[in-house]
Amino acid sequence: MQKTQWLDVEALVEAYEDSLDPIFELHRGGKIHVVNSVGLDSQRRLSSVYTPGVAEVCRAIQADPSLAYEYTIKSNSVAVVTDGSAVLGLGNIGPLAAEPVMSGKAMLFREFGLIDAFPICLATQDVEEIIATVKAISPVFGGINLEDISSPRCFEIESRLDAELDIPVFHDDQHGTAVVVLAGLINALRLTNRDWHSLRVVIAGIGAAGVACTKILLAAGVRDIVGFDRSGAVHRDRPQLDGIKTWFAANTNQAGFRGSIADALDGADVFIGVSGPNFLKTSDLQRMAADAVVFAMANPNPEILPDQVAGTPVRIIGTGRSDYPNQINNSLAFPGIFRGALDSGATTINEAMKLAAARAIAGCVDDSELETGRIVPAQLDRRVAPAVAAAVARAARESGVTRKQRGK
Amino acid sequence: MQKTQWLDVEALVEAYEDSLDPIFELHRGGKIHVVNSVGLDSQRRLSSVYTPGVAEVCRAIQADPSLAYEYTIKSNSVAVVTDGSAVLGLGNIGPLAAEPVMSGKAMLFREFGLIDAFPICLATQDVEEIIATVKAISPVFGGINLEDISSPRCFEIESRLDAELDIPVFHDDQHGTAVVVLAGLINALRLTNRDWHSLRVVIAGIGAAGVACTKILLAAGVRDIVGFDRSGAVHRDRPQLDGIKTWFAANTNQAGFRGSIADALDGADVFIGVSGPNFLKTSDLQRMAADAVVFAMANPNPEILPDQVAGTPVRIIGTGRSDYPNQINNSLAFPGIFRGALDSGATTINEAMKLAAARAIAGCVDDSELETGRIVPAQLDRRVAPAVAAAVARAARESGVTRKQRGK
Repeated sequence: MQKTQWLDVEALVEAYEDSLDPIFELHRGGKIHVVNSVGLDSQRRLSSVYTPGVAEVCRAIQADPSLAYEYTIKSNSVAVVTDGSAVLGLGNIGPLAAEPVMSGKAMLFREFGLIDAFPICLATQDVEEIIATVKAISPVFGGINLEDISSPRCFEIESRLDAELDIPVFHDDQHGTAVVVLAGLINALRLTNRDWHSLRVVIAGIGAAGVACTKILLAAGVRDIVGFDRSGAVHRDRPQLDGIKTWFAANTNQAGFRGSIADALDGADVFIGVSGPNFLKTSDLQRMAADAVVFAMANPNPEILPDQVAGTPVRIIGTGRSDYPNQINNSLAFPGIFRGALDSGATTINEAMKLAAARAIAGCVDDSELETGRIVPAQLDRRVAPAVAAAVARAARESGVTRKQRGK
Repeated sequence: MQKTQWLDVEALVEAYEDSLDPIFELHRGGKIHVVNSVGLDSQRRLSSVYTPGVAEVCRAIQADPSLAYEYTIKSNSVAVVTDGSAVLGLGNIGPLAAEPVMSGKAMLFREFGLIDAFPICLATQDVEEIIATVKAISPVFGGINLEDISSPRCFEIESRLDAELDIPVFHDDQHGTAVVVLAGLINALRLTNRDWHSLRVVIAGIGAAGVACTKILLAAGVRDIVGFDRSGAVHRDRPQLDGIKTWFAANTNQAGFRGSIADALDGADVFIGVSGPNFLKTSDLQRMAADAVVFAMANPNPEILPDQVAGTPVRIIGTGRSDYPNQINNSLAFPGIFRGALDSGATTINEAMKLAAARAIAGCVDDSELETGRIVPAQLDRRVAPAVAAAVARAARESGVTRKQRGK
């Protein structure tokens, strides 16, 4: 048969698509849109959602502000707030360059939590200005998700906002990570038959995530934690500890350990890494206890790669990466946590709610599924967010941190 | 036939729907949603729009901030900002009660301008705090629409933000109203064969809208304007004029008129009302010039009703209401103005762009359609926003207020 002279459209499209960078194309024009819940196809509809009809709704909310939760976006909206100071592993890249991460987060809120999240990327890194700005824009939001704000500024910003606002404020880099780490540990202990009280834990990286992991482990009953920062082991007598490290030193390392990371790992059951790439060598792990657990979560390059633990006592290893088993990723936590907080009318996200979230995530791995390479659910597991939401909502109600809701 | 025992479902649903208030039901849960531009149905997609793939996009924007217009929501997003101090005719109802109006506005942006608009309702009414907050949240937005902020604070807030930000800032209560008033007058003069230079205009209400109408009429070539506020005619020798009224007195009422509204209307061609209900009596209009034009825009109750002008020289009357002919409504202007500003990369919305918008709106009424009851297009006329956008974008380019865009 003679070769046709017609244009080969399929080949043309394929070549064109191959010439584009798929990641950049997915981001072109932004990744989220604001759309209308009802059509504006008649004068009557227009007069109902906008002037003059809207005035009735405004007057009702003015008379009873709690109606904002029924007739505005407040009941389902979360601000994803950053100052761009500590974005992923990229550092202080500023608000414009941080938007793709915050919009990505908003997409996860929508996809897994059915939440309307909007990125707020701040043109200031001043603590007081950040607090004032978030307070000023808070009326339309039902929750504030702080994101990628550098330590130690993140601690004051979160605690001040949580105290001063009547909606939940949640710094995901701290608590999202801590919740998923705890979920992974719950299942690691379930698999290896150990308990919290006898556990020896070493943590590397005493920033936002490391401090939050420490707090949630203490709440879960862990007694023996030693932490490392760039200057080595943190202990009470170390000079020049700042605010949060003073807290850390006072609440960990009761034995006053001052040695190397290799010495600290001698007999340790768990290593939690939220520090930087290649922090550990294979030889450091040789002296860990039998059935040891390593969560090497530095992103994108972990403290040690799963390939490097062969021949050591490490039985379970997790990372932040999707290309290895046991991905310890915040996205298992925050959509369900906010869904549960919004649905229950929680005014804060307390320790009981975080513990409930961790248990719910762990519970999504059935006994039949649980194995060393599967201690947390997959990131795309649709069972997780509803289970977390239900557990968090119950914990909120039981711990009495919900506002009075109409008809409930 | 025997009467059926089955449940009459249709009647049940009908009775249920009749028992609901349709306006409140349209507002339930809020009127806008944030949705994703692509699905998150695979690990690969997740890794592209979020970590780790997103890091590539962040790095590119960090290296070249202008890429934020290509790979974030900035190219198409507008903040609808209010402090709730002057909402519709309801007054100072605060940020929570103002949300239904701001979300309604966001819906019009989406429906007519294909713009992603988000309501920002501020928990402060302090001028400096409002300016600082809007500047702090500006990075993700391509434009700022100020709304329902009381006069005279609105003037400083708008001019400061427009000067200090590199994105367009537009106080719709001022300029949206002024643009549509000018469009209506263009067509009124077209119908009655008059010119701008000989026109005698009386304006009632020297707030945000009144001042902006005055400015755009002066720019269009009107020479004889007399303004009234609660204390009567504004003239240069009146004591205790504040900042904006000092400007008003200096630029209007060259003859130093000090009489009543009835006397001011003697021989006047145009009355523009942005004051309050029942400001005028039928007898006030008796002495106006032949073919007089009255825009009585107080909302929801105008300065005088269209039914009350019979037997006077008034030939054309417009109001802000959808239940009378000639609805002078901002929604004819702002979606197209922002569409044109965003598409052209305008860094401000200048007088040339506003005049172009007014001419485009007026041009949407064909010669064959133009009549005393139809001097502006209908609110739902789909031709208007694209025509305004094209005219505004061209005016922005011709007046040199566009930022450098990639590949243009």
